[in-house]
Amino acid sequence: MPGRFERIRQEGDDRDRLTCRDCGYVAYENPKVVVGSVVAVEDPSGEDAVLLCRRAIEPRSGFWTLPAGYLEMHETVEEGARREAWEEACARIRTEGVLAVYSIARLGQVQVMFRARLEEPGYAAGPESLEVRAFPWASIPWDEIAFPTVRWALNAWREGAGHPGPAVLNPPEDQRGTRPLPGHILAGDAG
Amino acid sequence: MPGRFERIRQEGDDRDRLTCRDCGYVAYENPKVVVGSVVAVEDPSGEDAVLLCRRAIEPRSGFWTLPAGYLEMHETVEEGARREAWEEACARIRTEGVLAVYSIARLGQVQVMFRARLEEPGYAAGPESLEVRAFPWASIPWDEIAFPTVRWALNAWREGAGHPGPAVLNPPEDQRGTRPLPGHILAGDAG
Repeated sequence: MPGRFERIRQEGDDRDRLTCRDCGYVAYENPKVVVGSVVAVEDPSGEDAVLLCRRAIEPRSGFWTLPAGYLEMHETVEEGARREAWEEACARIRTEGVLAVYSIARLGQVQVMFRARLEEPGYAAGPESLEVRAFPWASIPWDEIAFPTVRWALNAWREGAGHPGPAVLNPPEDQRGTRPLPGHILAGDAG
Repeated sequence: MPGRFERIRQEGDDRDRLTCRDCGYVAYENPKVVVGSVVAVEDPSGEDAVLLCRRAIEPRSGFWTLPAGYLEMHETVEEGARREAWEEACARIRTEGVLAVYSIARLGQVQVMFRARLEEPGYAAGPESLEVRAFPWASIPWDEIAFPTVRWALNAWREGAGHPGPAVLNPPEDQRGTRPLPGHILAGDAG
């Protein structure tokens, strides 16, 4: 940040906020919204495969993730999920309901994950992906998954296959989204 | 804003961002997350009533709303919904799954609404409410509801009563959340 930002308590506020010593601007920090989807792709086996993207960027470059990213202003959650699938996987998708709403309290993040399908055939690596592939369930590279929420969403998708139910929340092992990836320091961890 | 902010396109960015001419700080604008709940309250009639709060603050002071508000950093969506119920309705609630995820593209807002119940008896007006009441369905003051999403969430709750299903999204009449309240100018409309 170019300005000289410090944490200052404003009169009447109940917490410190990042405030620029030069211009007085208060940079309110709000949780960010990530939107993404588990995209089912018809597979010769007859069982749906799922679309994964190998990340070309940090954090977790080289690891596999779902097409997902930050929601932009004046975009609906479905529009954001479709845009991310297009940007990262060159895939035109149709969302089919909310699969999960995850909270990553550690980062101040809310993730809205959709069930989705290809609206038209075809996918390919976008600029932020090294590779995009449709993995049958038995071939998912679990040891090379980028983030815990990717694992959570894939499992939730699998559990609800054929009978989509209520949106799930964080799994019991990380109810607040505070556990870091074992052995990895993620961007934003310092914050 | 104290700084001299102007919309400037940074090199390599794909849109203009509010940038301070004094210190160079870029104020990224991100969608905000609202969390809230439809709180079911046991009623002598045998049919659940719902908790509504009459707003003591603008916008829409004097109108009825659900206990809801902005998610804070490092809070899960359930924690935020419980905090808002406590702050606005002095109610200790237990969330029971995601009722709806609404997009208000007009404002850059995502609303995560829960089904909930009182965890312990009792509710009262918090500092931002004039009054808190449990309304049987037939008594809901539809003409004095503060925001369209309150109406949407109440209807979604009613439709799913007894058999909670997948989280709903925006209703067909306002799929992107762009329609203003008839006859009212809301805070943020100018933005």
